[in-house]
Amino acid sequence: MRAELIGIGTEILLGQIPNTNAQWMSDRLAGIGVDVVHHQAVGDNLDRIADAFRLALSRADVVISTGGLGPTQDDITREGIALALGVPLVRRPEIEEFLREKFRRMGRDMPEINLVQADAPVGARYLLPDRGTAPGLVVPVGDRVLYAVAGVPAEMREMMESTILPELAARSGGKVIASRVLRSTGMAEARVAEVLADLFDTATNPTLAYLASAGEVKVRLTAKASSPEEAEQLIDPLADEVARRLGATVFTTTDENLEVVVARLLRASERRVACAESLTGGALAARLTAEAGSSDYFVGSAVCYTATAKRDVLGVSPATIDGPGVVSEACAREMAAGARRLFRSDVAVSLTGVAGPDPHDGKPPGEVWVGLDAPNLQTARHIRAPGDRALVIRWAEQAALDLLRRYLEDRIEDRIEG
Amino acid sequence: MRAELIGIGTEILLGQIPNTNAQWMSDRLAGIGVDVVHHQAVGDNLDRIADAFRLALSRADVVISTGGLGPTQDDITREGIALALGVPLVRRPEIEEFLREKFRRMGRDMPEINLVQADAPVGARYLLPDRGTAPGLVVPVGDRVLYAVAGVPAEMREMMESTILPELAARSGGKVIASRVLRSTGMAEARVAEVLADLFDTATNPTLAYLASAGEVKVRLTAKASSPEEAEQLIDPLADEVARRLGATVFTTTDENLEVVVARLLRASERRVACAESLTGGALAARLTAEAGSSDYFVGSAVCYTATAKRDVLGVSPATIDGPGVVSEACAREMAAGARRLFRSDVAVSLTGVAGPDPHDGKPPGEVWVGLDAPNLQTARHIRAPGDRALVIRWAEQAALDLLRRYLEDRIEDRIEG
Repeated sequence: MRAELIGIGTEILLGQIPNTNAQWMSDRLAGIGVDVVHHQAVGDNLDRIADAFRLALSRADVVISTGGLGPTQDDITREGIALALGVPLVRRPEIEEFLREKFRRMGRDMPEINLVQADAPVGARYLLPDRGTAPGLVVPVGDRVLYAVAGVPAEMREMMESTILPELAARSGGKVIASRVLRSTGMAEARVAEVLADLFDTATNPTLAYLASAGEVKVRLTAKASSPEEAEQLIDPLADEVARRLGATVFTTTDENLEVVVARLLRASERRVACAESLTGGALAARLTAEAGSSDYFVGSAVCYTATAKRDVLGVSPATIDGPGVVSEACAREMAAGARRLFRSDVAVSLTGVAGPDPHDGKPPGEVWVGLDAPNLQTARHIRAPGDRALVIRWAEQAALDLLRRYLEDRIEDRIEG
Repeated sequence: MRAELIGIGTEILLGQIPNTNAQWMSDRLAGIGVDVVHHQAVGDNLDRIADAFRLALSRADVVISTGGLGPTQDDITREGIALALGVPLVRRPEIEEFLREKFRRMGRDMPEINLVQADAPVGARYLLPDRGTAPGLVVPVGDRVLYAVAGVPAEMREMMESTILPELAARSGGKVIASRVLRSTGMAEARVAEVLADLFDTATNPTLAYLASAGEVKVRLTAKASSPEEAEQLIDPLADEVARRLGATVFTTTDENLEVVVARLLRASERRVACAESLTGGALAARLTAEAGSSDYFVGSAVCYTATAKRDVLGVSPATIDGPGVVSEACAREMAAGARRLFRSDVAVSLTGVAGPDPHDGKPPGEVWVGLDAPNLQTARHIRAPGDRALVIRWAEQAALDLLRRYLEDRIEDRIEG
């Protein structure tokens, strides 16, 4: 099955936004065995949009467009599809009712301009969104099918995952590709590559690939087979071997984010965590609270940017501030203890360091101390994070989450690389 | 002058890499007044590459391809151009000599496979690279022109900046495009569109476009003129009119992020801020500390997820917790006052609400109170944020930053829409 993607919006052609939708959709379509053979992008121009749909329908089995489904005057994807197919648009009262209800729930009147979102080409199905207000369209064209979804990435992903990918997977029937992602933190990419070199050279199905990002390395195993189960069975032995070699640095074998792993461990052990943050400025707490239900395991975080705040709020001692300073093992330990006391949590993690670009308190950018305080353990770790300000912050978050993960997994004694 | 971009490479269609070249080139071409009207991406397939060039040459004055100029078997852009134009490839001894010299300087013998990079369609000019080994091609086609450059971004940029952009600027007779972005928060996109409807309908140069994201609307004005100064002058009166109609909801006329505007205002007034956060879980503080030098104006944030933490850390009264509850105006005000006291800051903003997906303390998802505490002002605002958990959090951050912005700009009395 061949697919073609059409990104619609003058902002793409002006270079104001990257067409990230095309990459995400291509990756996910490949994952269910659909061949994406063309991408197109066009501006908010009726004739060019219609031409793009005609061209795509002449050479692909499935056409998916993103963008141009909003309520404003430059949102003309609906008209473009109608023009390409030579069918009129009709107002669908069910969509209109959905839109009015959506606005009612937000406590607002629906602006009349939004009514155009209730228009659909004759013969089309519509997809009602959870996010946003833009309904998606599904238009059968002979034995081909055209999908139109919103350009806002989160809204596009919602419709792809809930409807389009499952429908296309069912249509394609044949070979499937399955991937499994192990994620490791605390070991450099080059070291991971060294440890897995012979597997990388010899593995063919599944294949093995690395992807490094701030503070972690992903190892992706990809197998092709005639069923998802068969693909998973092909992956199992290689995944086991990779996990064995990387040991405690592997925090997930199912592509979970580190904060999701930590949340699961906290929930399972019925413990609640508090944080004391400096250089991460709240980013550690924001990661721990990104998932729904985080109040089950997260109490709070004291973000203390200044030495005075560290003393007043967290009780860091003047002797530490005037002695080893705010970027030190002693400060990390006292911050963690202070956070556990302040928030009355079961465990607390702390972070202090230099995000950069300038040195702070006599320490260079990238210098970070991570602390942990629990009834049975007080400890701290030192890391030297590479890269710019944003990268240092990300590395620091990873180090704090990983120290907490190892504590909760009772693997705190395992060596952590600097 | 109309341009079309063709990204060549199966890795783009598999979603393994984003086609960032298209965005960068589009932005730079717009800057010299070239209209990019289409993007295409195709895989490493000879017929499809040739078709893509034929289609592009049928509708654009300038075609620029990226990728497929390397030495390996899947690099077939040269063959694709030759097939599209019906001309043979010839080996160019000058390129061959350049390649051999390039390898000599690296102290290596040139692999014979690299020789294909010395092939060019009959009638083509070539561009020798400083970076990499892939020569670019310039192929005149009647009064049109086709450029082919490498897909490695740094190599693409080198040829664009040294040769292609100057050539096209000369061809286009000096027309330039300038854009200006006003950003507004606290007014829904549909309402912005309504307020500006007549301008949108009648404006031709500059044109006017909207782009909505969580908690804000961007209004972009784009003008074409013979010099950057003239383009800016064309934009001025329309920008003033848009700013007048949107009033205090406009927080920047130079496309700055809201936290950057707030940071500038805090610095200018030598005030330091503290935060008290609940549903945003540290995300507000993380935005305020993302830029280097944030310790000049940011002291800290108390992220208090539980009622107990709000009481213990921020001093929220039992009467409030047991009365109107933690999602209330009283709680927002007491949290702000508590944060200002705790961190000894000049001003404090607070956030309390329900991120969802479940109701909390009897309030529905999206219900948010934002508070502000300063020596001369204590106030609070109510918002109903739409969307899922991540969107509600983003809307809440925007509302808190905007309340702070209006306080610092002394525009706190202006109406804020719910």
